[in-house]
Amino acid sequence: MARTTEDGTGRIPAPDGTAAPAEATPEAPAAPQREPSQRGLSRRRLLGASAAGLAGLGAAAAGGYVVADARSGARSSGSDAAAAVPFYGVHQAGIVTPAQDRLHFVSFDITTTSRADLVDVLREWTKAAERMTAGEAAGDTGAVDGPIEAPPEDTGEALGLPASQLTLTIGFGPTMFDRRFGLAARRPPALVDLPAFPGDALDPARSGGDLAIQACAHDPQVAVHAVRNLARIGFGAVAVRWSQLGFGRTSSTSRDQATPRNLFGFKDGTRNLKAEDSALLEEQLWAAPGDGAPWMAGGSYLVARRMRMHIETWDRTPLSEQQAIFGRFKGTGAPTTSVDADDNEFDDFEFDTVTGASEPVIAMDAHTRLAHPDQNAGARLLRRGYNFVDGSDGLGRLDAGLFFLAYQRDPRKQFIPIQRNLARSDTMNEYVKHVGSAVFACPPGVRKGGYWGDTLFT
Amino acid sequence: MARTTEDGTGRIPAPDGTAAPAEATPEAPAAPQREPSQRGLSRRRLLGASAAGLAGLGAAAAGGYVVADARSGARSSGSDAAAAVPFYGVHQAGIVTPAQDRLHFVSFDITTTSRADLVDVLREWTKAAERMTAGEAAGDTGAVDGPIEAPPEDTGEALGLPASQLTLTIGFGPTMFDRRFGLAARRPPALVDLPAFPGDALDPARSGGDLAIQACAHDPQVAVHAVRNLARIGFGAVAVRWSQLGFGRTSSTSRDQATPRNLFGFKDGTRNLKAEDSALLEEQLWAAPGDGAPWMAGGSYLVARRMRMHIETWDRTPLSEQQAIFGRFKGTGAPTTSVDADDNEFDDFEFDTVTGASEPVIAMDAHTRLAHPDQNAGARLLRRGYNFVDGSDGLGRLDAGLFFLAYQRDPRKQFIPIQRNLARSDTMNEYVKHVGSAVFACPPGVRKGGYWGDTLFT
Repeated sequence: MARTTEDGTGRIPAPDGTAAPAEATPEAPAAPQREPSQRGLSRRRLLGASAAGLAGLGAAAAGGYVVADARSGARSSGSDAAAAVPFYGVHQAGIVTPAQDRLHFVSFDITTTSRADLVDVLREWTKAAERMTAGEAAGDTGAVDGPIEAPPEDTGEALGLPASQLTLTIGFGPTMFDRRFGLAARRPPALVDLPAFPGDALDPARSGGDLAIQACAHDPQVAVHAVRNLARIGFGAVAVRWSQLGFGRTSSTSRDQATPRNLFGFKDGTRNLKAEDSALLEEQLWAAPGDGAPWMAGGSYLVARRMRMHIETWDRTPLSEQQAIFGRFKGTGAPTTSVDADDNEFDDFEFDTVTGASEPVIAMDAHTRLAHPDQNAGARLLRRGYNFVDGSDGLGRLDAGLFFLAYQRDPRKQFIPIQRNLARSDTMNEYVKHVGSAVFACPPGVRKGGYWGDTLFT
Repeated sequence: MARTTEDGTGRIPAPDGTAAPAEATPEAPAAPQREPSQRGLSRRRLLGASAAGLAGLGAAAAGGYVVADARSGARSSGSDAAAAVPFYGVHQAGIVTPAQDRLHFVSFDITTTSRADLVDVLREWTKAAERMTAGEAAGDTGAVDGPIEAPPEDTGEALGLPASQLTLTIGFGPTMFDRRFGLAARRPPALVDLPAFPGDALDPARSGGDLAIQACAHDPQVAVHAVRNLARIGFGAVAVRWSQLGFGRTSSTSRDQATPRNLFGFKDGTRNLKAEDSALLEEQLWAAPGDGAPWMAGGSYLVARRMRMHIETWDRTPLSEQQAIFGRFKGTGAPTTSVDADDNEFDDFEFDTVTGASEPVIAMDAHTRLAHPDQNAGARLLRRGYNFVDGSDGLGRLDAGLFFLAYQRDPRKQFIPIQRNLARSDTMNEYVKHVGSAVFACPPGVRKGGYWGDTLFT
């Protein structure tokens, strides 16, 4: 019934470069990072072993992590999808972690003016994040075992659900570095306010934020539960500014993952930066000590854009035009310069190839040409976006699109020039509109005993 | 790589009473209901076998249904979650079908005034629904194999994804029976306009509709794809009025399913009508020929209510009060009248039990007492609701709640009196607000060669 992962620890292997084992950080102990017996019981355990008919569960939970529940139904496939992703490491999890299927992203306004209160929230959040990413309740006493006269320390809707590869990733917005908390001098040079791009139609209610948390998991209920409990814990110090669910990932961040499709029906993220690209990650993803903000070393910068897609218009566009915009075949994802469309998704683009009429096969204003590193001084992004549908827009259309998330070492050299290029010329602009925008500095990973952002506050 | 279900057909067993095998319907042929080779290739097949490295796929697709894709990632668990649910049957699928994990519900306004056009859409929709529920593209030529000068017959984002137990269930709203289509005389007596209930705060933009389709699947991308393609096919005759995604089921409709939790953190639907309750289903779920609308025999009436939950307030409520409102223990779901809280979720409520102070253990205004069949002349519902989070509300709170869906034989005897009872007295009303409402007559299942609603139009 209760399963653990192959190595018996209930954890998936740490991907290259993310959430590295504690041994990789000299300051962290080499001993196992978690002792479940010291921090209360798993969500599953709280139900009482007899309720689940899992007589052996206590032992299983003590020896590792309960990562699956035979009674929880068809929530995810394979034991990996239910497993826990390590919370501690040199980098935050949720960046090069293989992209999970579902997203809940939340941006907060800080409502307190007390730096000490803000640090308290970050400390409390760190504890809760460590617990929830391990598949445990948000607080020690959980949803049902605390004093009955008090509100529970967990909201309960994830009781019985496994960790589901939940990752929680925090980011700090430019506005956190205003005068309120004495952080102005520590604002990283790379954390610039994004410029206005041609065609932007940004809704302030879906943009910005002092703080953000990206919750990714294979079970959306687990991601929603995490965001809700962090908001609950932060009550009085932070308030939700905006939040976005994503139902399907649109990028792979590991070579082990198949390339998913966006709502244009095309494979997305074929050429994405991936966890295995170690040298490129150092060059393009992770902030370095010499980048002007030593506290950000090992962190990364996140650009979030809510891109509304005019899918009804797209759906009335000929296949030829769709493929011309992408420069790829819709079925296989192969570049349209590939002779054989089969199985060539990972072929290089041959941008110099011309037709018999001496026109470039991949047009000068094709999306993939304009976004390609060759057109952008080698700049690349680690994309981690999600498809969304948020009901309809009152005009007979679905409010659908792509919630674009991209991590990078320096938006000034990566997202901003690439997006300038696209905003100016991309033929895809007829079908997309950027309606939300935000940028965040995501600090390095947390060491055991530390807290989210401690390199900034100490 | 490519898997089929245990019986090799790629279908899950038909649950008792729903989507019965063709043999159960005298008019339908006893031969296999589908011949895939006659209606184009599966979504998977369209990619080209070589692209997926599935050399044997052609044969597999011809012999049954390809129900899983080893490359599609962790989208669902077990072979069943990927399988196809039969589309044809005496009842529509998606009612007593074991509730899938994800929902996309859409309500349409009919924009044509031509009855013939409306029937054309229903015929086209039926063909597409049959195909998509089998894991195929919406149209014969799919997303990539049609003429390149034309818009594709499928939008493509589900290419490579299995059927994922997709069900598509249609319903007709009261407004469809106005003068436009000559249907006024055929409006079922049970399809009443819902009365205003105390506390209702209904948004017209999230209420009503001439037509609705409920898409349920284990993969949300498959459900979204289906709704989008039906909207695409209906363009010019129907327009999306409102739409709602649900990320987690809140009811079981089969005894084989574990009871899930709503966003109050409580198990929901423990006492739900279930597929196995054959006699009760005849009595409480399915419309009968003598009910006043013979065309509805074998159909059912659906009430949809968008219930916003004030989860932030709830989360500051003591566990004792939460449990008093539900009359159940939060952990196990057992009635608070059960002596041992363990493992007694399915215990009967002992409404007459009193405390030492002679107060009823389950208060007179507890939700479960007021909603119980004993308090409602035996009336029951088949609930099929979903948790939702639609971003935030601009006031620092998540826009979260329960999208309540309930099927029944006659809302006049079931939903309406139960909801009157609840709206008047339920202590839960402090934490929920009904912000959307609709009612639909869901016609009986389709026979092969027929179309959705053909008993109404012929």
